Amino acid sequence: MTSSTRRTTAEVRELVLGAAQQLFREQGYAATTTKQIANTAGVAETVVFDRFGTKPELFEVATIEPFRAFIGDYIASWRSIPRGGDIEKLIKTFIDGFIRLLSQNRRMLQDCTAASMSGDNSAMARLSRLVQQDFARALTQMSEVLEGEDAALHFGGLDPPLSVAAGLGMAMSLVLLDDWLIDPDHRRPGRERILRELTAMILHGLTHRPSS
Amino acid sequence: MTSSTRRTTAEVRELVLGAAQQLFREQGYAATTTKQIANTAGVAETVVFDRFGTKPELFEVATIEPFRAFIGDYIASWRSIPRGGDIEKLIKTFIDGFIRLLSQNRRMLQDCTAASMSGDNSAMARLSRLVQQDFARALTQMSEVLEGEDAALHFGGLDPPLSVAAGLGMAMSLVLLDDWLIDPDHRRPGRERILRELTAMILHGLTHRPSS
Repeated sequence: MTSSTRRTTAEVRELVLGAAQQLFREQGYAATTTKQIANTAGVAETVVFDRFGTKPELFEVATIEPFRAFIGDYIASWRSIPRGGDIEKLIKTFIDGFIRLLSQNRRMLQDCTAASMSGDNSAMARLSRLVQQDFARALTQMSEVLEGEDAALHFGGLDPPLSVAAGLGMAMSLVLLDDWLIDPDHRRPGRERILRELTAMILHGLTHRPSS
Repeated sequence: MTSSTRRTTAEVRELVLGAAQQLFREQGYAATTTKQIANTAGVAETVVFDRFGTKPELFEVATIEPFRAFIGDYIASWRSIPRGGDIEKLIKTFIDGFIRLLSQNRRMLQDCTAASMSGDNSAMARLSRLVQQDFARALTQMSEVLEGEDAALHFGGLDPPLSVAAGLGMAMSLVLLDDWLIDPDHRRPGRERILRELTAMILHGLTHRPSS
């Protein structure tokens, strides 16, 4: 529209990415078209292709970017706390944000997991492997921080890449593998109960090890 | 064959179940036929149907039975240890057996997970939900033991169903969600390293909580 204010590149990127996330979350990858994404974002379809390339490339960015941003923010806040700071609060804040993000993006994470587990060589399976690799690489940043802060934060005997994988895997399992883990005959635990249990397991699991 | 020794009902059941597990593990659910299972077991196909009903029913039993037996054995051994026994050894033994069983049955667990995540109403998706519910019910037995032995084993502040779900979910995530958690640019951790990390997280995660 000629009357619209000219949008910056960054604003257009945000609009397209936001529309893609909304549609992938609601409808899944397969049912979402770049045309729909363009319409929801209020831009021409060519703008989507110009900015992000193909639909698979857009899915990769849309799935990973929120996690990357979240982990980056968290690492920055971790680095800014004083030595001997409140580790319980630090863990609880992370797990709270992480399970919210997992729940919000559950559909996209499930699409990736299911495609990757199918073991075939479809476009979606290959794409899923890329998304998972991006995700796993982002976790490496966390394990580097854990390694660096080891002594300062009274940790000892950790295996940083695996300590991060185990702690975050526990949170992922309660969101993505919940049907394996939660008895269908019992009341489903709410988010507060899950947060309390995960925080206790990770806090004590990390901080009471004999230094090796 | 007229020359063969007559097999007992239990022996035939073992033969069919063993053949089904082998083929489901190697080929997955979809590619395995009841005819193949009968041939591998050395019985007539009608015997398979007589003993187990349909292929879906056989898959359900074949997937769940090893886990049920393992958890049953473990609970029996837990109950037989003296109060104040070696909790670290108890946890390590369980996790060792559990990740072996998960790895061995990875293909069947992935088939179930992928089908259930697809969200459709296919026969395999419905079947997968049954398998997952059986599995989750078996975990409830463990949480009942944890609840009963709480004080005796120096635990406190646990949320037994969720403590079990979190600990076992952590192990499941490292076997089934490993592509999300292990950086592809780094060396893949071996079973011993995974066992050490999981044992430490669960042992300290469970035993150092303030009693509430």
